[in-house]
Amino acid sequence: MNIAGTHYRAIFTRGDPPEVRVIDQTLLPHRFETVALATPGDAARAIREMVVRGAPLIGATAAYGVALAMRSEPSDASLAAAIRTLSATRPTAVNLRWALDGAATLLRALTPAERAAAAFDFAARLCDDDVRGNRAIGGHGLRLFRSVAARAGDGVGGSGRPLNVMTHCNAGWLATVDWGTATAPMYRAHDAGMRLHIWVRETRPRLQGAGLTAWELGQHGIPHTLVSDGAAGHLLSRGRVDLVIVGTDRTTAAGDVANKVGTYPLALAARDNDVPFHVAAPGPSIDWTIEDGREIPIEERDPDEITRVRGVDEDGVERSVRIVPEGTRAANYAFDLTPRRLVTALVTERGVVAAEREALGRLFGR
Amino acid sequence: MNIAGTHYRAIFTRGDPPEVRVIDQTLLPHRFETVALATPGDAARAIREMVVRGAPLIGATAAYGVALAMRSEPSDASLAAAIRTLSATRPTAVNLRWALDGAATLLRALTPAERAAAAFDFAARLCDDDVRGNRAIGGHGLRLFRSVAARAGDGVGGSGRPLNVMTHCNAGWLATVDWGTATAPMYRAHDAGMRLHIWVRETRPRLQGAGLTAWELGQHGIPHTLVSDGAAGHLLSRGRVDLVIVGTDRTTAAGDVANKVGTYPLALAARDNDVPFHVAAPGPSIDWTIEDGREIPIEERDPDEITRVRGVDEDGVERSVRIVPEGTRAANYAFDLTPRRLVTALVTERGVVAAEREALGRLFGR
Repeated sequence: MNIAGTHYRAIFTRGDPPEVRVIDQTLLPHRFETVALATPGDAARAIREMVVRGAPLIGATAAYGVALAMRSEPSDASLAAAIRTLSATRPTAVNLRWALDGAATLLRALTPAERAAAAFDFAARLCDDDVRGNRAIGGHGLRLFRSVAARAGDGVGGSGRPLNVMTHCNAGWLATVDWGTATAPMYRAHDAGMRLHIWVRETRPRLQGAGLTAWELGQHGIPHTLVSDGAAGHLLSRGRVDLVIVGTDRTTAAGDVANKVGTYPLALAARDNDVPFHVAAPGPSIDWTIEDGREIPIEERDPDEITRVRGVDEDGVERSVRIVPEGTRAANYAFDLTPRRLVTALVTERGVVAAEREALGRLFGR
Repeated sequence: MNIAGTHYRAIFTRGDPPEVRVIDQTLLPHRFETVALATPGDAARAIREMVVRGAPLIGATAAYGVALAMRSEPSDASLAAAIRTLSATRPTAVNLRWALDGAATLLRALTPAERAAAAFDFAARLCDDDVRGNRAIGGHGLRLFRSVAARAGDGVGGSGRPLNVMTHCNAGWLATVDWGTATAPMYRAHDAGMRLHIWVRETRPRLQGAGLTAWELGQHGIPHTLVSDGAAGHLLSRGRVDLVIVGTDRTTAAGDVANKVGTYPLALAARDNDVPFHVAAPGPSIDWTIEDGREIPIEERDPDEITRVRGVDEDGVERSVRIVPEGTRAANYAFDLTPRRLVTALVTERGVVAAEREALGRLFGR
């Protein structure tokens, strides 16, 4: 996507031999900087410390982490060590495991001399597939937006009021290589001339809605309004939202969805008000080994993310401030589980599909 | 309640002629200071800028605001002006109107010479009634806590694990004159030796959970854990919450509840997991003039409360930081409506009652 007119992917290479670079998302929205990842340790740290985040982008970064390991030392031991280090970074997103399994299977079958080039190719292909997949999700989502707008009537999305879409966290292009998952339909619809207005939930504790989604949409010129996470119920109950679309960190084979904490209450509020609740779910987010979402591990992160907030002060200086009495105990659950009964449909790169085992299996040939 | 061993009410008078003082809640939890309210304008400003907040405390502060007006100028015009100014401060809580209507009815029947003393008496009585009412809510709530603990079995709340209670925002003693509404049962239960653990939702945007409820509970020694607002669904779905209890800014005659934004999705998540959802609702929070909660005006506040967060930096300096890209549009809905179908019961000073017109009317003789 474009940042001040220049096209970027959230992870990219440049030069030959390729240097791997990512946008440092811990600095957004206050500063835009890219950083180089030189070693698999750099890649693991970038994932763990959320320099990169979002299930698809975590997968892509892990693939490049393996490539960096193969470039410095293409042995079996080095491959195993890189995969071990990268696997341990974050537990909930399945794309990480999927990317590492794919790389391992490919590279083990090659001689050490062949591995570095093959690993870079694999990572580049994974990125291109992500971009293509998300663009396709955008196309299917655009048709969905059009049908919701048509049902709402009165020229909604066109000559009438804008189509009101609510999203959670950042399932944007910063969470992927490009386009985003939940945002891809927004970008496609906006580019096709549809009138949109996006309700952006700030998404505590890390504020990816306030810091990343608002920034992305702003760069692209899509009208949006930031609200607190708690305000979703009010807006839904007053008819201010036509549809909800969110991303997913892991989707089970039966359609349960683990996504950023706060998604499940949002789905309940959508259902209570008969508002469609859609999940943009690329194939690599689907974990075919489980059906019951309660088996998905829910990451617990540092309580400091709850007790402190980062921003810029009146002088533009970045600061972290403590919002609680000193010594307050906090718990930081990063994801929650939305049961498939609350999901209107999954928007995949292969089309829109019901959140159920048989339909999903048919679509993906699994 | 006690602050570092000294007993305080959230609003109090001292000296003769009485000086009206309140705890400045915009400074908590980082600084504890009380400020004097010398004029009705001071009282109105304290309510508007949330130096005092919480429906019952707003009512008490408004009553003292009228008394201050009567002390400086006890004419009909002065009374009307004070009531007009104070009425316009905040639209959602009904206690404000209730306190002002009560004061107006009383004072209009008196001669100007009698008004100042009567107005101070009225405000003091209103405060004492609030304290007594909240203490009674605590007693009824304590019995409720005991019955939920007994149903949970295995010595929950006693020899077993603590009873897990979740609350939202601050319906604590800082929201009232003393005891709080939703917290009164917690204080009564703790003092009676029951083992409790409170899940405190931080309650964006103004973080009254993180800043006020955590502080209150900490002062009183009640174990608690702060979580993001979005985490409630996860905790409820994993059996980590035995009951939810919140306050109310306005309860309709039929039992609909307007409370701090985020309450409605919390009620949905409690219902989806069969966890009791209780509302501590003192009589003065009940608006007998309406049944349908959708008639309650929902206050919209300054978007800066969404785009900025206040706290203390590493050096203990209080600062406000911006968390969004410059120029981001935000909307700040301060309350939402929880329909009575989601309310397990109301805990009033007269007992625990179903959220329905007939039961409520019978209990309050209305």
